[in-house]
Amino acid sequence: MTQRILVINPNSTAAVTSGIDQAMAPLRLEGGPRIDCATLAEGPPGIQSQRDVDHVVPPLCRLIEREHNATDAFVIACFSDPGLHSARETTDRPVFGIMEAGLTTALNLGNSIGIIAILPTSVARHLRFVRAMGLSQRVAGDRAVGLNVVELSDEARTYGRLVETGRALRDQDGADVIVMGCAGMARYRERMEDALGVAVIDPSQAAASMAIGAIRLGYRTGRRSAA
Amino acid sequence: MTQRILVINPNSTAAVTSGIDQAMAPLRLEGGPRIDCATLAEGPPGIQSQRDVDHVVPPLCRLIEREHNATDAFVIACFSDPGLHSARETTDRPVFGIMEAGLTTALNLGNSIGIIAILPTSVARHLRFVRAMGLSQRVAGDRAVGLNVVELSDEARTYGRLVETGRALRDQDGADVIVMGCAGMARYRERMEDALGVAVIDPSQAAASMAIGAIRLGYRTGRRSAA
Amino acid sequence: MTQRILVINPNSTAAVTSGIDQAMAPLRLEGGPRIDCATLAEGPPGIQSQRDVDHVVPPLCRLIEREHNATDAFVIACFSDPGLHSARETTDRPVFGIMEAGLTTALNLGNSIGIIAILPTSVARHLRFVRAMGLSQRVAGDRAVGLNVVELSDEARTYGRLVETGRALRDQDGADVIVMGCAGMARYRERMEDALGVAVIDPSQAAASMAIGAIRLGYRTGRRSAA
Amino acid sequence: MTQRILVINPNSTAAVTSGIDQAMAPLRLEGGPRIDCATLAEGPPGIQSQRDVDHVVPPLCRLIEREHNATDAFVIACFSDPGLHSARETTDRPVFGIMEAGLTTALNLGNSIGIIAILPTSVARHLRFVRAMGLSQRVAGDRAVGLNVVELSDEARTYGRLVETGRALRDQDGADVIVMGCAGMARYRERMEDALGVAVIDPSQAAASMAIGAIRLGYRTGRRSAA
Amino acid sequence: MTQRILVINPNSTAAVTSGIDQAMAPLRLEGGPRIDCATLAEGPPGIQSQRDVDHVVPPLCRLIEREHNATDAFVIACFSDPGLHSARETTDRPVFGIMEAGLTTALNLGNSIGIIAILPTSVARHLRFVRAMGLSQRVAGDRAVGLNVVELSDEARTYGRLVETGRALRDQDGADVIVMGCAGMARYRERMEDALGVAVIDPSQAAASMAIGAIRLGYRTGRRSAA
Amino acid sequence: MTQRILVINPNSTAAVTSGIDQAMAPLRLEGGPRIDCATLAEGPPGIQSQRDVDHVVPPLCRLIEREHNATDAFVIACFSDPGLHSARETTDRPVFGIMEAGLTTALNLGNSIGIIAILPTSVARHLRFVRAMGLSQRVAGDRAVGLNVVELSDEARTYGRLVETGRALRDQDGADVIVMGCAGMARYRERMEDALGVAVIDPSQAAASMAIGAIRLGYRTGRRSAA
Repeated sequence: MTQRILVINPNSTAAVTSGIDQAMAPLRLEGGPRIDCATLAEGPPGIQSQRDVDHVVPPLCRLIEREHNATDAFVIACFSDPGLHSARETTDRPVFGIMEAGLTTALNLGNSIGIIAILPTSVARHLRFVRAMGLSQRVAGDRAVGLNVVELSDEARTYGRLVETGRALRDQDGADVIVMGCAGMARYRERMEDALGVAVIDPSQAAASMAIGAIRLGYRTGRRSAA
Repeated sequence: MTQRILVINPNSTAAVTSGIDQAMAPLRLEGGPRIDCATLAEGPPGIQSQRDVDHVVPPLCRLIEREHNATDAFVIACFSDPGLHSARETTDRPVFGIMEAGLTTALNLGNSIGIIAILPTSVARHLRFVRAMGLSQRVAGDRAVGLNVVELSDEARTYGRLVETGRALRDQDGADVIVMGCAGMARYRERMEDALGVAVIDPSQAAASMAIGAIRLGYRTGRRSAA
Repeated sequence: MTQRILVINPNSTAAVTSGIDQAMAPLRLEGGPRIDCATLAEGPPGIQSQRDVDHVVPPLCRLIEREHNATDAFVIACFSDPGLHSARETTDRPVFGIMEAGLTTALNLGNSIGIIAILPTSVARHLRFVRAMGLSQRVAGDRAVGLNVVELSDEARTYGRLVETGRALRDQDGADVIVMGCAGMARYRERMEDALGVAVIDPSQAAASMAIGAIRLGYRTGRRSAA
Repeated sequence: MTQRILVINPNSTAAVTSGIDQAMAPLRLEGGPRIDCATLAEGPPGIQSQRDVDHVVPPLCRLIEREHNATDAFVIACFSDPGLHSARETTDRPVFGIMEAGLTTALNLGNSIGIIAILPTSVARHLRFVRAMGLSQRVAGDRAVGLNVVELSDEARTYGRLVETGRALRDQDGADVIVMGCAGMARYRERMEDALGVAVIDPSQAAASMAIGAIRLGYRTGRRSAA
Repeated sequence: MTQRILVINPNSTAAVTSGIDQAMAPLRLEGGPRIDCATLAEGPPGIQSQRDVDHVVPPLCRLIEREHNATDAFVIACFSDPGLHSARETTDRPVFGIMEAGLTTALNLGNSIGIIAILPTSVARHLRFVRAMGLSQRVAGDRAVGLNVVELSDEARTYGRLVETGRALRDQDGADVIVMGCAGMARYRERMEDALGVAVIDPSQAAASMAIGAIRLGYRTGRRSAA
Repeated sequence: MTQRILVINPNSTAAVTSGIDQAMAPLRLEGGPRIDCATLAEGPPGIQSQRDVDHVVPPLCRLIEREHNATDAFVIACFSDPGLHSARETTDRPVFGIMEAGLTTALNLGNSIGIIAILPTSVARHLRFVRAMGLSQRVAGDRAVGLNVVELSDEARTYGRLVETGRALRDQDGADVIVMGCAGMARYRERMEDALGVAVIDPSQAAASMAIGAIRLGYRTGRRSAA
């Protein structure tokens, strides 16, 4: 049976899932796992706070339980990696969080990582997770574009702020690789690389790439049995 | 034109390259990049010391220069990541070192990494690189199997020592994911996972998986132009 | 109106809440805040996994919302600090997690902290939070007593294992202050101090003590307004 | 017999002790320990250098010895925590240093701590102690108000500089909780919280709060006996 | 005028000063600074506690003031570096502490440092200073020989315990360079190197060597003037 | 026989070697080791990239092998410490790298180190080595003078940029000791100290000073024999 990666958008906005789905295009290989994207219907329209992060975990786990038998690897496509560790207790399939995967991939592409957050209030949360991952020495900075939902729908405005924020991370903080702190922004990625002259990572793509390898290689994840 | 990953074994032992080549099998996907393996003829039979690591860099860079036009991503398949940063100056294609890729992949599969080295004299060198990567907080330990070349050709003996060393890392150092500190040992991987009950990573496979993603996504690597 | 601290046991076991309530006795000062303890009815009998931790957050936040007007500070009395950061978004009253408060108090009582966990599977979770707090340099070790629920009801057995585990942390890991990684165990605390010769902290007590100070001093917590 | 906390001002300026004494007011609970403040007569008028810090230790220890029998916990109220570890050898009562207590309390109130120093020459000394505490990852910055003794007596001027310095720590360094790096400044605390929109800690108050808990709970401090 | 290094033994035991003086022999070079050793008469017989460390600072500073005009560099020859930072305020000559100099020298001679302490109660103090120096990642361990003053006068016994302790640091903690945590033990150094097979540093010698360089090169130390 | 230090300039520019040789003048003591300087003929004119660093290692090791019998300690006088660890496998004499020696010496002269690099592209490489040394907490910043080879021959221009860069490290990054990230610049050192008011280290001088001590004390370096 065909192997399958399920990329879950934990917010309930179909347009975001659509953006993630388009970002998966380069990773859909003929002989590779199928990459499906799902929207978590019970999720909020956007995940913007720690409350949002925590409240999506129960429905996210239920979705993973339902999909477990039909899935070989999961990706949680929200930069706060909501429920990542609970998900790893819920299924023995590999589970990737896009923040964890995005940052660990960036370590192979640059010396010092800059994170572009959407909201200023996300920065402290990101930095707490960076510390939890033990990666503080490799993160140069985390800066927010500071746009609200209405402004984010203006693609030109968003692109402009993404590049400005990337420049600040590069020139003021010393970053030489950028991770976009949000899912579904892959359509800006290549233009940003041209504008900034450094690698720019869409973390959903980084996570899906890791999932392909994990499935093909068959890493043993899930509950450990001592031997 | 088909995309191509070149995995370079910097030592001159064809049997090692052969082992790496076999390890690539699960990652050769239809529609995906071709994965070729090459032996560095000018390399020593085995890379066992810092001198060995440093002396392979010039011929490695020359090989990369020759292969640049025909290659989309390179993997340096020796756990000391010889010449990794010089290689990144030599070509603007993505270059992955198997230690860097193996450890960063492991961060997504466990809380605390155990490294199995072949030689005791490699441990200090590994730990220096772990510090250079800023990952000291996530590495539980690095222990050597302590076998010489003759003993390593005895597969049963080698497998036994790999499992014993993995157990020590797991039970005494608290590791919950293991990285094999050597290329070409993939044939032991799955049995070790069954014996130890934790994920075990062959770092060459981890690096090739990252290379697939880097090629498909087209990250901008190489010399940065400021904008 | 009398100031009030609400200490919430996020599991649904009344006997645990009762143990916490008794532990509060020394901190109920005339002229000081009233300390009430509550059981989270929707919580599981015990919080033993990351899933348990995440699943209590929604009902915990609802309880905090209901109690907000009648409370001056909250304590979340589970060593995994479930929902700590969500709680801080839910109310502008100070919220203390007993792990965070227990460890930060310990920094004033010793050079190197030993944590006694109940379950072996909790250790990785604790260490992730220790890293998130940036306190890895001050934590000597985290060891589990390794008793199941039936065995934990045997007080003599439990006390014996607590002391053995404390000795291992002290003698093998170099700890000179111990934090019990569980709520409601204060009845063992003083005997353990006598047996081990070092300070032993019940983290619920540490958190309630901090809450008293926070209420009396009136720290500004909650959503920041920039000026 | 009534429990007693002795808060020692190691400089000989009675006005500073008076300021500390007023800061203790919210913590004097009817059923709680008595909080007395003392001036170290042999201390210098102000503690401004490492020499000052070191020279107060002998008389400070003598004072602690004299007061040992009549005291249940000591607080050393100078932000350089002079003699903290010697004091812990001098008495088996709990001893708190206001820097240690102020910073560890701040860890419960924010993600990233800003320290306001009085003198620029104090900053290096503070940062050395922050490293000694293992808290470097949680301290965003340490900035000095840069006023001399005459200017500090001008309350409006001092308040203005405190707020400017707090703003720089918050806006340029990313601090979301402020610790005043000096004893006896509590009278500015609440206004600063209103101006800055973040919690502001008077470290003498934080230390006295910890001392109340330590006395009520009866932590075993002082020379350890192994068992 | 001949340049002069003054090595101060802050304890009052002449035999210790004598041992330090003999250790200076290889560093007394023709054309180089004169190396004089002095005993601090007001110091205790031995410096064994933080109280001892702090109580020597005033007389140490007075001695440095008296000797300032006749000295080009000072060495404080006690492994707790008593008064190091006060001394640097007292004189603008370079001042070296033997712990700081011993550890920083060791960084050039090995990957991972083992410290041999005399008393078990010194270990926590050493580790606090290691953290203050920011060197925790490079220190493998600190173990005490655990001999009292009488036993230390038995040279064979002392040598035996030094070697045993060095072996534990090397084999159990992974140290590949040893620093003796005490002044005046140079007479054991070379034998220990032969027995252990790694470099062993007498920190007084390391500090005096640094002082020679500082004098000959004329580093600007002391109170900084901004320009 | 006279003891001898060989300071190797791994680039082939005789003028650089000449500058290093002049910098050695204060360390040539009548009774001390002879200090000879050599140019590595096979080296590039300047070492500016990781490729340059790696390519000098084989000829550097051959030079060390040839000189082994006639030399008591080696210094590698390029701030990238090329071949430092290979050199330590090549000879059992002590080998010092000027970056390692310069930074470790600086730890004794200030709280926070500023590094002046020549090329902007060197900064990432330096920071990787600082992490490898475990010294990240003590390095305030690394800034480049940003002059090309032609401009560097203009001494007034170079001196001006060195001072500007030093000021930025001191005032913006908080450095209180400066290390020049290049060999052969000692002629600017004292003027820079006067201009900046902090100690400025020429790392070649720091390394040669350490070598003098290592030779006189006879540290056991080279391949360890276990005992």
